[in-house]
Amino acid sequence: MMMKHPLLIKTMLERSRKLFPKKEIFSRCFEKDHRLTYGDMHKRVCRLANVLQSLGAQRGDKIGTFAWNNHRHLELYFAVTCSDMVLHTLNLRLFPEHLIHVINHAADKIIFVDEDLIPLLERVSDQLTTVEKYVILTDKEELPPTRLSPALHYEKLLADAPETFEFPDDVDENSPAGMCYTTATTGLPKGVLYTQRSIYLHSLVQALPDIHCLAEQDVLMPVVPMFHVMAWGLPFSAAWLGTKLVMPGRVLTPDALCKLMEQEKVTISAGVPTIWMSILQHLEAGNKYDLSALRHVAIGGSAASANMIKLLGKFGINVFHAYGMTETSPVVLASRLKSYMKEWGEDRQYALRAKQGLLLPGLDMKIVNNEGNEVAWDGKEMGELCVRGPWIAGAYFDEPERSKENFRDGWLYTNDMVTIDEEGFVLIQDRAKDLIKSGGEWISSVDLENVIMIHPAVAEAAVIAIPDPKWQERPMACVVLKAAEKDKVTEADILAFLEGKVAKWWLPDKVMFIDEIPKTSVGKFNKKALRERFG
Amino acid sequence: MMMKHPLLIKTMLERSRKLFPKKEIFSRCFEKDHRLTYGDMHKRVCRLANVLQSLGAQRGDKIGTFAWNNHRHLELYFAVTCSDMVLHTLNLRLFPEHLIHVINHAADKIIFVDEDLIPLLERVSDQLTTVEKYVILTDKEELPPTRLSPALHYEKLLADAPETFEFPDDVDENSPAGMCYTTATTGLPKGVLYTQRSIYLHSLVQALPDIHCLAEQDVLMPVVPMFHVMAWGLPFSAAWLGTKLVMPGRVLTPDALCKLMEQEKVTISAGVPTIWMSILQHLEAGNKYDLSALRHVAIGGSAASANMIKLLGKFGINVFHAYGMTETSPVVLASRLKSYMKEWGEDRQYALRAKQGLLLPGLDMKIVNNEGNEVAWDGKEMGELCVRGPWIAGAYFDEPERSKENFRDGWLYTNDMVTIDEEGFVLIQDRAKDLIKSGGEWISSVDLENVIMIHPAVAEAAVIAIPDPKWQERPMACVVLKAAEKDKVTEADILAFLEGKVAKWWLPDKVMFIDEIPKTSVGKFNKKALRERFG
Repeated sequence: MMMKHPLLIKTMLERSRKLFPKKEIFSRCFEKDHRLTYGDMHKRVCRLANVLQSLGAQRGDKIGTFAWNNHRHLELYFAVTCSDMVLHTLNLRLFPEHLIHVINHAADKIIFVDEDLIPLLERVSDQLTTVEKYVILTDKEELPPTRLSPALHYEKLLADAPETFEFPDDVDENSPAGMCYTTATTGLPKGVLYTQRSIYLHSLVQALPDIHCLAEQDVLMPVVPMFHVMAWGLPFSAAWLGTKLVMPGRVLTPDALCKLMEQEKVTISAGVPTIWMSILQHLEAGNKYDLSALRHVAIGGSAASANMIKLLGKFGINVFHAYGMTETSPVVLASRLKSYMKEWGEDRQYALRAKQGLLLPGLDMKIVNNEGNEVAWDGKEMGELCVRGPWIAGAYFDEPERSKENFRDGWLYTNDMVTIDEEGFVLIQDRAKDLIKSGGEWISSVDLENVIMIHPAVAEAAVIAIPDPKWQERPMACVVLKAAEKDKVTEADILAFLEGKVAKWWLPDKVMFIDEIPKTSVGKFNKKALRERFG
Repeated sequence: MMMKHPLLIKTMLERSRKLFPKKEIFSRCFEKDHRLTYGDMHKRVCRLANVLQSLGAQRGDKIGTFAWNNHRHLELYFAVTCSDMVLHTLNLRLFPEHLIHVINHAADKIIFVDEDLIPLLERVSDQLTTVEKYVILTDKEELPPTRLSPALHYEKLLADAPETFEFPDDVDENSPAGMCYTTATTGLPKGVLYTQRSIYLHSLVQALPDIHCLAEQDVLMPVVPMFHVMAWGLPFSAAWLGTKLVMPGRVLTPDALCKLMEQEKVTISAGVPTIWMSILQHLEAGNKYDLSALRHVAIGGSAASANMIKLLGKFGINVFHAYGMTETSPVVLASRLKSYMKEWGEDRQYALRAKQGLLLPGLDMKIVNNEGNEVAWDGKEMGELCVRGPWIAGAYFDEPERSKENFRDGWLYTNDMVTIDEEGFVLIQDRAKDLIKSGGEWISSVDLENVIMIHPAVAEAAVIAIPDPKWQERPMACVVLKAAEKDKVTEADILAFLEGKVAKWWLPDKVMFIDEIPKTSVGKFNKKALRERFG
């Protein structure tokens, strides 16, 4: 029989130390850029594990991080999880009352904070009930002045600690190792606990050729923040496989990112559409970089249109769509064309690439309509996407009541309304509550947005439902024009553009031109805010 | 917290049915070639699961297969394992008394047998104590005459069975799912049980870009038999990822294999060195095929020399070395160059590619010398390779006493003597008992063989230890010359060729020219037979 060998994150750390000690990590911090190797990282992770112990942290404790994508945050990823503690990555963009809630609800014991983020934490620190110590991540020799107390100096603590550490072997693979809170559509954020096993399996599967295709020879730049579902799990996969990591830090301007990709010869990257849209506009404006090393980038978090994928392709940025959520570790779907589709026409290919794609190996999926039956694979019938599998949450942390809504009969109900076509490509039509129901029929606001965004003058568009006495709900489009096009396009122009491209009854009742689409703390269109403003 | 979701083979079958129903399986059977799709396969697997049930097989039962690489064998892989039964792939090359032992020891209940293999089974059938039924895999409408009894007709059974089946969900991931026996150096073969979990994890990891790099777009031809550690697990990975499979059947001549690779546009293959050596000689003889689709082939089972890897490369066959054994599912090591090695000189690269390579993600390894201490990573100090991990056996099936030798302190002791270099590349020096100890110093017979095989006239060479009054043991080389070179090369020529290439005291005391090197049932040099003949 096979050995009883648990699936632990420790094996990733060990492999990167033993087989890839020379491979590099580039890390952009507040004051300077760092270069270290996986060999260096391992020593610093061991020092950090000793520090955690000397600060009184024990197995099972929650350790908070409040930091950008940099090497110190990466060290915390491994030192905390391999010590059988729980890495709680705090979302920097949470509103103060939410931040207080998640820290107290998780019962974080220590928080590690990037120096430039200290003010955000100071605003709430007197309401934190469980935090015993703050450790400041800084390149400065001395601690910056702070009201956080007690505040300790990360580098000094590390310098004083031994550079070897015996990480425990007797860890249950189902022990919690990581934690993220997800913004709820109503109420306070809800926590998701990842286990050693779920992180192990997700890290493996997403490295497969038909997903990120991550190899030792790659140079990976996760633009997705390390406080968003642990940077989609990419730092774990990279260290395990010996892939060079490029951590872009806090400045995510198109110029900064393109320069980094050029300079470090990045081959794979990943981030939300907003990032890639801003890079696209920057390149369209005539800025030039050598991005020839880039093989592909994953876009997730919200949808990218076929048009955006096409335009990015013209600049050598080959996009593939992925789909996931905090509850799913996150990757669930990836849109990679099947071999025989490469013979298909270009438009058909782009239409598929704009879908969220195919279910990952290891997961189960069902798509159920209002009656609870599975929908047809016809690309038309809409239903709610439900998933289950070894890296899918089974409940929210310490929220038995609120868990009941999303977790039923062994499935996670994602709240995303989707269609699935004959080939198994899933397309997110809308968040269940963002769908527009006009005269008993559904209108996909996402579809409408995508068509509007093809208009050459449009930078962004969000479609919301407005109440209608006859049809219950009707669509209204909120449109942001490109700077150079401002005031040159009218409502009638947009409607004329849509004519023939969508069903007549889908045509928005109103087109509003606004300066900016409000975003949620995780960068998605905040349709709730739009509805409050215009609804 | 994450769902409790078991790691089951069922998820592979489901994914291939739902996402890749159009993808093809090519299968060469005794009388004809078949083409079917994963969609077809799923229906046939369901029919087969119904047949298993109606034949009285129950969960946990061992089901034997005695078959080549073809689609029916593939159907058995999935129907048996997904029914929570145990697939016992019988090695066609076992000596009769060993075959009797493994069937009785495993307690196989039903045996599925390819029609052309019936005679081999008839020889032993009256000594089988647990087998209740035989099912004949054939393209013929009627059963061929046979003494096996009762003998049933596979296709007729399938035709009469329903094409849907509900595979059980309540399977423990640690349940046995597969079984192989390994030839012992002494005594009867020993059984290894694979679990749902071990097959799941191994199938994932070996598909990673730095191992087989298996994608939907690939066309995979496993030349390694399905009765050798389940064709190295490749059929599972392929079905899971939607990769087209090419099953070459029983005729593994260089011409048959090259034609298949050309015709089906094979991109990835895998097999033992003997196969690739015969293909090399066939190509060197001037036979031409279009192998341009081929991306790489994995060589494992025993070692390929740097020279062989180089020569195959000249014909567009890009080899990477892998290492494993029946006890390890099998893949443990894969020799893929690290990114920075691509700048190194050609010779240095070939030397690395001739090593067995780097430890796979998810496994632990130690290499211990006679004193039980770990050896230096210097490429010189020899020690025994020990591994552990989730797809490594922890004991032989129902052999508590014999398990003690190889399984100690949570490790599998592989019996392979290896070195490991500064970069972590492992090189098999010899099976522990095949090492030649001359004057208290070890001589690697494998190293010597590899050098001898560089000689342009040499087809194969095996080096064995012969007793020596002064040095205890001395090396003797058994050399097979290429047909065209027969009688043109002398012992003195070989020794002169070796001079300067190996240490003087490594020079064989004797060079014997023989017609053929005897092989074990799994195609390895049978040094025991050579020692008995010449020792």
